[in-house]
Amino acid sequence: MTLLLSAARDKPLFTPGPLTTSAAVKRAMLRDLGSRDREFTAVVRAVRRGLLAVAGVSQEEGYEAVLMQGSGTFGVEAVLTCAAPPGGKWLIVSNGAYGERMARICQVHRIAHAILRCPEDARPDPAALDQALAADPAVTGVAAVHCETTTGILNPAEEIGRVAKRHGKTYALDSMSAFGGVEFDLPASGADFLVSSSNKCVEGVPGLSFCLCRRDALLATEGWARTLSLDLLDQWRALEQTGQFRFTPPTHVVLALAQALEELAAEGGVPGRAARYRANQATLLAGMRALGFVEYLAPRLQGPIITSFRYPADPRFDFPTFYGRLNDLGFVIYPGKVSGADCFRIGTIGRIFPDDVRDLLRAVEQTLAVIFSSGGPAGVEQEAGGLLKALS
Amino acid sequence: MTLLLSAARDKPLFTPGPLTTSAAVKRAMLRDLGSRDREFTAVVRAVRRGLLAVAGVSQEEGYEAVLMQGSGTFGVEAVLTCAAPPGGKWLIVSNGAYGERMARICQVHRIAHAILRCPEDARPDPAALDQALAADPAVTGVAAVHCETTTGILNPAEEIGRVAKRHGKTYALDSMSAFGGVEFDLPASGADFLVSSSNKCVEGVPGLSFCLCRRDALLATEGWARTLSLDLLDQWRALEQTGQFRFTPPTHVVLALAQALEELAAEGGVPGRAARYRANQATLLAGMRALGFVEYLAPRLQGPIITSFRYPADPRFDFPTFYGRLNDLGFVIYPGKVSGADCFRIGTIGRIFPDDVRDLLRAVEQTLAVIFSSGGPAGVEQEAGGLLKALS
Repeated sequence: MTLLLSAARDKPLFTPGPLTTSAAVKRAMLRDLGSRDREFTAVVRAVRRGLLAVAGVSQEEGYEAVLMQGSGTFGVEAVLTCAAPPGGKWLIVSNGAYGERMARICQVHRIAHAILRCPEDARPDPAALDQALAADPAVTGVAAVHCETTTGILNPAEEIGRVAKRHGKTYALDSMSAFGGVEFDLPASGADFLVSSSNKCVEGVPGLSFCLCRRDALLATEGWARTLSLDLLDQWRALEQTGQFRFTPPTHVVLALAQALEELAAEGGVPGRAARYRANQATLLAGMRALGFVEYLAPRLQGPIITSFRYPADPRFDFPTFYGRLNDLGFVIYPGKVSGADCFRIGTIGRIFPDDVRDLLRAVEQTLAVIFSSGGPAGVEQEAGGLLKALS
Repeated sequence: MTLLLSAARDKPLFTPGPLTTSAAVKRAMLRDLGSRDREFTAVVRAVRRGLLAVAGVSQEEGYEAVLMQGSGTFGVEAVLTCAAPPGGKWLIVSNGAYGERMARICQVHRIAHAILRCPEDARPDPAALDQALAADPAVTGVAAVHCETTTGILNPAEEIGRVAKRHGKTYALDSMSAFGGVEFDLPASGADFLVSSSNKCVEGVPGLSFCLCRRDALLATEGWARTLSLDLLDQWRALEQTGQFRFTPPTHVVLALAQALEELAAEGGVPGRAARYRANQATLLAGMRALGFVEYLAPRLQGPIITSFRYPADPRFDFPTFYGRLNDLGFVIYPGKVSGADCFRIGTIGRIFPDDVRDLLRAVEQTLAVIFSSGGPAGVEQEAGGLLKALS
């Protein structure tokens, strides 16, 4: 009993992941299974089937789920290095750090690539992509980010896919922080490879990425892999033929993911989970605005996953102090990552509910009161009304 | 309480890992920590320090511990692709599947390499290595396997290192299944990079590899990395400067590793653990021999980690049946991997003790009785005495 209480007492994580998971997801890890044993391989098969089901597709419809050890970036590197033929070229659609990371991966592997950049506070323009593809026939694939966690913007992943497919290109989508938490039509998007990870909206623990692949696109990558560990096709073949990973899998993480997928189904699948995340984010936005905070993105661009807030203009605001005091009160938020503006971020995914968001908002209010009173005139604590003025 | 009981009821794993871990190691995962939060970064620092302590070295003595997401193979690929300069060449000392895997990694990355092979049932000869290095000045580094899990042989890792260093070569050692369970003098071996993983003799759960590096050898790899995810130097810089991983770490696996390292220290460090593993292996060997089994390796070559046993000559022996029946009795063993002989393997590492080995031996005896009786004359169950004859 003490164990469960202590787990329940952990600070809620208002981050883009690792995030707060259910007690049952964590308890699923209290087992040691042999990675080549039949009990574990049955779990692996169920997880792979479950991930396809989250996307509303199946093996019968020509899709495959490949699990890959490591973080989400390992999965993105797997796709970019496996799905480009020798001499291939990626066109990377970028409006944030995760688009730039894709370019960095291509650079390290000396894979030809071009970057279609747009500002971090704007959606990529499918028409510009159309022109870029028309102008550069060397491009073999388009890579894009679904929810750019840098800002929290939701990119037009389906429109980008339609353009890519119209030009006959491979389409790789980094749906890291969106998959499972945002309604999305995988077949309609035309995505050949969609990457996400165990510790995002599917609400498992970190240690695995996964890639949902169109089987014929996956089979076409024969001989293209540029690493051993991140060889998607080789990994898939082993999983498919033996149910086993080629190399030791994080068995406990896989067990947690199996439980997490059951809980996602029980919540009503993606629509149910997306509704909770939207409610979390709406609660956050209303509360933070009432406290005088201004979000970085225009509301029509904002996704429900994570929200970037600008630092208050008041020079007494200091992010490390703000972060540390919120932490002392039992809440973990996230630093900013936008290039051109001072921001911090608050995630609204994971096993958290609008009531948890309201608890956080009270803590933010209390923290601001302390920060602005200590440096303020005569050190007198200001009330919420004063705060609104101080932050405006 | 039911949880702990159900965890305690899991089948003991007589495998080379993932292996049976303590209840406390698993319970350490019942927490969700933010990967960039100060509470977690403190754990990461403690784990890195603890891993160096297991090797009997420290940062003051010029060593660094780099954690890497993924399985042990991810760590080996990281070292082979980071520690060879452009145009560099590895000389791989191989007497089993893990040596061959190193060659495969070089092949995929088009890194020049030569293989110094010896039979799977023999130790590599340091004199042959000396000659090979004298004959091939293009070689920049020597890569070897400490305990070749293929057979269970313990290779002369220190002697190999002395030859490599005499020729001024980088020395990379895959100590996957040996580190923490076999006494080893890291500085005396001259190893610049030693790789192991969280789920072997340190008795954590799978999901992380780690590399103990001589700091100046690590710093010399600037610009050599051939991947982003497996860039050792970049990973080390982030861990050192911020305490954070570059990309999401498996936080629960790290928490389990921290607990596992405390338990290793409490057991008396490597000498204490090595003594238990030797006792496990001695119990196994005596019992299996009494049942008529013959081990693959000559006794003087056999390490305490895992033992390969030849299939009994009796045609009624069928490994899948043997494995399945042992499994039904609650014991997980491991298939063989030797090229030229039909073997299965039994691991003696993890949270298992001589009493667990004796339980396994009783189950093996019982299983053999069933196998040999069912196909035997009139289906009569044979007793242990008969078994010895049947297996001889």
